[in-house]
Amino acid sequence: MIKIGLCGLGTVGKSFVEHIDESYNLIKNKIGTDFEITAIADRSIRKKKYKDGIKITEDAMSLVNIKDIDVIVELIGNVDLSYELLKQSIKNQKHVITANKALIAKHGGELFSLASKHNTFIGFEASVAGAIPIIHAISANFTNEKITSIAGIINGTSNFILHKMSSSNCDLQFALTEAQKLGYAEADPSFDINGTDAAHKISILAALAFGIKPPLEQTDIEGIESITNMDISYTKELGYIIKHVGVTEISGEVVNVSVHPVLVANNNIFSQVPNEMNAIVVKGDRFGQTMLYGHGAGGNATASAVISDLVSAINFINYSKSSYTQMVETVGKKSYDIGSIENTESQYYLRISADDVPGVMAEITNKLAEKEISIEAVTQHEPTDANSPIPIVIITNNVRHMLIKKVIKDIEQMENIKDKVYSIRILDND
Amino acid sequence: MIKIGLCGLGTVGKSFVEHIDESYNLIKNKIGTDFEITAIADRSIRKKKYKDGIKITEDAMSLVNIKDIDVIVELIGNVDLSYELLKQSIKNQKHVITANKALIAKHGGELFSLASKHNTFIGFEASVAGAIPIIHAISANFTNEKITSIAGIINGTSNFILHKMSSSNCDLQFALTEAQKLGYAEADPSFDINGTDAAHKISILAALAFGIKPPLEQTDIEGIESITNMDISYTKELGYIIKHVGVTEISGEVVNVSVHPVLVANNNIFSQVPNEMNAIVVKGDRFGQTMLYGHGAGGNATASAVISDLVSAINFINYSKSSYTQMVETVGKKSYDIGSIENTESQYYLRISADDVPGVMAEITNKLAEKEISIEAVTQHEPTDANSPIPIVIITNNVRHMLIKKVIKDIEQMENIKDKVYSIRILDND
Repeated sequence: MIKIGLCGLGTVGKSFVEHIDESYNLIKNKIGTDFEITAIADRSIRKKKYKDGIKITEDAMSLVNIKDIDVIVELIGNVDLSYELLKQSIKNQKHVITANKALIAKHGGELFSLASKHNTFIGFEASVAGAIPIIHAISANFTNEKITSIAGIINGTSNFILHKMSSSNCDLQFALTEAQKLGYAEADPSFDINGTDAAHKISILAALAFGIKPPLEQTDIEGIESITNMDISYTKELGYIIKHVGVTEISGEVVNVSVHPVLVANNNIFSQVPNEMNAIVVKGDRFGQTMLYGHGAGGNATASAVISDLVSAINFINYSKSSYTQMVETVGKKSYDIGSIENTESQYYLRISADDVPGVMAEITNKLAEKEISIEAVTQHEPTDANSPIPIVIITNNVRHMLIKKVIKDIEQMENIKDKVYSIRILDND
Repeated sequence: MIKIGLCGLGTVGKSFVEHIDESYNLIKNKIGTDFEITAIADRSIRKKKYKDGIKITEDAMSLVNIKDIDVIVELIGNVDLSYELLKQSIKNQKHVITANKALIAKHGGELFSLASKHNTFIGFEASVAGAIPIIHAISANFTNEKITSIAGIINGTSNFILHKMSSSNCDLQFALTEAQKLGYAEADPSFDINGTDAAHKISILAALAFGIKPPLEQTDIEGIESITNMDISYTKELGYIIKHVGVTEISGEVVNVSVHPVLVANNNIFSQVPNEMNAIVVKGDRFGQTMLYGHGAGGNATASAVISDLVSAINFINYSKSSYTQMVETVGKKSYDIGSIENTESQYYLRISADDVPGVMAEITNKLAEKEISIEAVTQHEPTDANSPIPIVIITNNVRHMLIKKVIKDIEQMENIKDKVYSIRILDND
């Protein structure tokens, strides 16, 4: 039985506890070991809810001395306290997991060495880009060859603000207030706005990519505070969108690390990272460029990354197979019905070739109406030459595959329809 | 010393050998174990180049019986031969790695069980989406909670063709010929065009995500063969782009699996996956949606994924730490100079507020010319009111940070310049 001590029961801490409850069986079967949250430390624990049977305390440091705790999960945030907590935990042979990017950016080098010396696991997947498994992905594939650069949109708050300024034509202050209302920015957003948070994250990625201590002190930091509506609109006219990025690259024996705003061309995939989303591009000698994209913040996304570290920590403790081998071994253990495409639903694009005679459009739309298929758009196009049929394009609302096939058959049997109707599904945008 | 038997010395096989040569020290230091390619099997090995001291044979099956080979790397492609090769290898306690998607989609369930029974490693990262570490990422993070769906652009050839049809307004046959010229399509491209290749890949992902046998037989398959120029242009008018995707999702006890063309809205990140690139979106209960994007094919990208499996296999053999722990332990072992931002180069956007007097634009452009900074675009905008300065926007060509700062200082000292000049770097598009 692996025993977990949780420090910090804020947004991420609560989501961590919920996630453990929800996925307990799934994870237990995967790792083949039982585990539980044994103790929770939180400054205001007495005002919060927790399960019966869990030890509680207001003093995080006290968990360090509880002998049977195997793993300390640090979700406090405060750098000084977390630093002491992790250092003591590792010295006491406890495995540690943290979501604290400032901590890793400032003390990562020392903590990694200490963990290596005491043969304990240290997990910090949640410290960079939330649920995006960038830390594991770098280790899985990229560190087998030379990484040349990493560039990322790694601060959700500033990305939300820039996206909002661009889409709503509002100023930075208005966008920031909106971000605060929606929970994408804290009461004091200065670390997000002035680039400090992004600097923490790119320093961690630079350390992993190049095997150096996190170069936070030497990171050139520029935030988004000086960007105006004017810049948003002028750059838009020129075919660009403004993003805020962290960048690190190696050239010869020199590593550069910086965070700053940047203009991204409209046809670059970085331009399509909306709202509070994060995206990180890693470039390598042989694999070319790979990008990871997803939710960079929020309680659930961050807790999800913490859980992935927990699974790694338990595998480390048990000298057991990796998550990868465990996953492969589950294949075939389950059986679900494989559904028929007939019952799936989506919007459809239909292209119909019709003779140019009065009433043909009405006849087609009637066929759709008979099956209660509603139409989002209809457009009639010019024929390729005078004797050719006219192409009619229809975008339907959601409809089952089975039903669209029936109506296509009906339309194909019409007197004025010459060719097969061609249909393509539309990707659900959510 | 871990001994590797390589079967297949085609494009990927050659790149694998080169990559091993190039990254030998890097990988050896990472895993703490020596390794070598001991034997190579290839039908036409006698016509090919290989290092001295390596056993060669035309008969792949013969490697299965060489006692001291620990890992078989299968890069042949033929399903029947590969199936026999992997089955016998596993039975002989050899660890196996394959890039063969058809093999895993057809026999994955059986091979995984067999590997589990004989406690051997089976790696197939390269079988789906080349260098994108999707297989490892799924195991690292996503299988700790409920995956709800996976959707991916997973066939580089068809994506190249659709992108080409859209960007060059050509027909499918022309785009295919172009793809063949550039090496993105094989002489017989039917598996790419008719959706079979994508079906192999989505079946593998469905198996991992839902713990079922690869549901290839039940996958609904539709290719791109019926898409015409007309569809490309009509959907463009409607704000969409046509992509070909593999999709799998779970709803209750039913799993759906299909591959088909789909219309993607222009503001969706999937619309920005150009040429032969791949992208896969995984959705989960808690982590939300995560996308991985990168090179889905090609010798180097595929070999890179094979190498990541090789590292995992060697860690598995040694019961040693995971790639993740190995990576963390390297942090701080190296030290590079951290470069000054002053020496980095990029294009710049400058916004200058100038009095509306004759000659001011000439004076500004002269300041740039003096420093030999060339200009890509200059635009002058309307002032916010009659008494305000006029905003002038300049896009420069590549220039060093140090130099742009000097010229900004020069411009700010001009008589007719009132405010600070605001500058933003432009993301390098390659």
